[in-house]
Amino acid sequence: LIRQRIGVPIELKRVADIDIQRNRGVTLPDGVLTKDTVSLLHDPDIDIIIELIGGIEPARSFILDAIKNRKHVVTANKALLSEHGHDLFRTAVHAGVDLAFEASVCGSIPIIRAVQEGFSADRIKSFLGIFNGTANYILSRMTSEGAAFEEALRDAQKKGFAEADPTLDIEGIDTLHKLCVLLSLAFGKRVHPRHIYTEGISKITPLDIEFSRELGYKIKLLAICRKSGNQVDARVHPTLIPEQHMLSRVEGTFNAVFVETEDAGPAMFYGRGAGMMPTASAVVADVISLARNITKGISQRIPLFSSEAAILQPIRIRPFKEIISRYYMRFSAVDKPGVLSKISGVLGRNHISIHSVVQKGRQTRGGSVPIFMLTHEAREADMQKALAQLDRLSLLRQKTMVIRIEDALPDA
Amino acid sequence: LIRQRIGVPIELKRVADIDIQRNRGVTLPDGVLTKDTVSLLHDPDIDIIIELIGGIEPARSFILDAIKNRKHVVTANKALLSEHGHDLFRTAVHAGVDLAFEASVCGSIPIIRAVQEGFSADRIKSFLGIFNGTANYILSRMTSEGAAFEEALRDAQKKGFAEADPTLDIEGIDTLHKLCVLLSLAFGKRVHPRHIYTEGISKITPLDIEFSRELGYKIKLLAICRKSGNQVDARVHPTLIPEQHMLSRVEGTFNAVFVETEDAGPAMFYGRGAGMMPTASAVVADVISLARNITKGISQRIPLFSSEAAILQPIRIRPFKEIISRYYMRFSAVDKPGVLSKISGVLGRNHISIHSVVQKGRQTRGGSVPIFMLTHEAREADMQKALAQLDRLSLLRQKTMVIRIEDALPDA
Repeated sequence: LIRQRIGVPIELKRVADIDIQRNRGVTLPDGVLTKDTVSLLHDPDIDIIIELIGGIEPARSFILDAIKNRKHVVTANKALLSEHGHDLFRTAVHAGVDLAFEASVCGSIPIIRAVQEGFSADRIKSFLGIFNGTANYILSRMTSEGAAFEEALRDAQKKGFAEADPTLDIEGIDTLHKLCVLLSLAFGKRVHPRHIYTEGISKITPLDIEFSRELGYKIKLLAICRKSGNQVDARVHPTLIPEQHMLSRVEGTFNAVFVETEDAGPAMFYGRGAGMMPTASAVVADVISLARNITKGISQRIPLFSSEAAILQPIRIRPFKEIISRYYMRFSAVDKPGVLSKISGVLGRNHISIHSVVQKGRQTRGGSVPIFMLTHEAREADMQKALAQLDRLSLLRQKTMVIRIEDALPDA
Repeated sequence: LIRQRIGVPIELKRVADIDIQRNRGVTLPDGVLTKDTVSLLHDPDIDIIIELIGGIEPARSFILDAIKNRKHVVTANKALLSEHGHDLFRTAVHAGVDLAFEASVCGSIPIIRAVQEGFSADRIKSFLGIFNGTANYILSRMTSEGAAFEEALRDAQKKGFAEADPTLDIEGIDTLHKLCVLLSLAFGKRVHPRHIYTEGISKITPLDIEFSRELGYKIKLLAICRKSGNQVDARVHPTLIPEQHMLSRVEGTFNAVFVETEDAGPAMFYGRGAGMMPTASAVVADVISLARNITKGISQRIPLFSSEAAILQPIRIRPFKEIISRYYMRFSAVDKPGVLSKISGVLGRNHISIHSVVQKGRQTRGGSVPIFMLTHEAREADMQKALAQLDRLSLLRQKTMVIRIEDALPDA
């Protein structure tokens, strides 16, 4: 198949790993499997290096070594790209080699190609992504079965959809890494993950999901990235989105990216974001793409970061406290008169106006009553001030739950 | 923007049209607008020709002339590509130039790139597409408002979503053209539209839509293309698809392609399939792609039809009568005893077994009663025999309405 699609065959020359004894169910010709990564990186017969180690080191040093030896690199390493992409790209430009990374964002969904080529004549205004299959599986289970977070997480771990330590997935860090890679491409600018607000899904309860549904919303862990003047509003957090929107239909371990451009309008890309074969499909597609360049004797046909030069400029991320959003709030209130008046007083003094309130009188453990509220648009800074004041009210038994709402999505 | 993304500017050298007097709201420098297409096609300063005439002639002759003059071509002409793509591609390969046609299928959705590059390491098993925004708008209106076909069509015409002569859109011909282009790419084979069964949406009634909804289905005009052994099951017709499936959520003038591959799994691409700016975005993206080749001094980096050589082999389309499908049927029956027994007798004799029947007793004009039926899987040949026999029954007042069902879609 590969020979037919390129015109020449691709030879798998060496595979380097720490453990070369373990049976992986794959038979390689003698001499292919090795522990000697350095000689592989320096082998003059090798044109393309595929890095599938993950994490920062030793992946970073290996890739830099490969680039300096004028080898093209394919990687699926979003953590590395989001933190050190700028340096890797600069080094690759200097060495005249290519770096391909389709598998780093949403596995088999060809979103990197879409941004670099499909929308090359267009300007991306925003993208919203469900980038993490583990978190989406957990939220889907909580939604379809009313499961608690811990229960849904255990189920995901049993099915192999979540790691023993699920922190990267459930706390939004994996989503953050992908957001950074895509943001750099979409806007041709440099960004570091530490500048982007990130919140995971571990505090979401079945109560939040149930009440959101009653209001016509689903809760999804979203990467949000939107141009706003000369700034970019970029963040990762659980989000209420209208049930009717296409993104709400993305269930289980699936990923999706909803992109809005100036000319092409809204578009969505949906598919398997992870897993052995979807990732392999994307990695080998990148190898084929590089091989097509090599057989033509060229490299760097597409500028890294999608555009020339702009690579060096950092981007202004809007400070999180300055974002404007509608909010979902859940209060755990003591069942006494005057609670609502106290809460609305705090909100009012912080310029947060209430859109709707529901108190169902249902008792939860500890004798507190849940009160649900949707606000009109408010500033994040005001919300944070209000939350600090609410946390000090003795009438509230727990920290107030806040989830941001995205309901001005195009073509819901 | 273009200069930044390629490294060099693109100059619009000439625009040729029959009518160069009409005000199109665009100002061009003196001497750019011309009626002299031939000198444009022969101008040695011109690298890329963009064909936006549509239809077969003179577009075909112009493109062949451009190719023979060693110019790269960008076209959005699906009618031409589906009928003469093979010849155009052969001529281009021989001349060493590229032919780019992202805008020919689903406008701004980069599905051509996804097939040529994103899934280049994979095998496509099937694709199902909502390829025509006009037909989808009409069906969406009929679904959301219970409008009759004629009413929804008039509304689409008033809004500029349908042409004065809407035949190409509503009879599935535009969808067929796009199916042929994508089929050739996906399977690397040659196909002619005349070999593919095509049926439009003009016979769908609000009754069909209402009853489908009660059963959990939506009616969409689908392009269906599925590998089946050494044949391809390819057809265009109105189709009942499960309401929960992602494709069911594609409303209004939007397009979508649902692709299933061996390794990457199911994927969906969604966006604006037509319109001035989405089409322009796709056309200019193709120009940028060709310019990136030209600046690197290469052409034909990606084999036309996605793979080498295979271009010459025709593909075996499964004869329509051999397809297997479940069916939705609506009978207009005289309200007399024994009707159902007669109908089921005809179906039984033709090996069609009934899954469920609903007769609501509601009278329609002319005193006939609608009877709705879903069948189990049956052969198309058997269904056509049964329909011919049913049409002769005096107990049935109108031709029986039949719509095929697709409910074994992956990851609904």
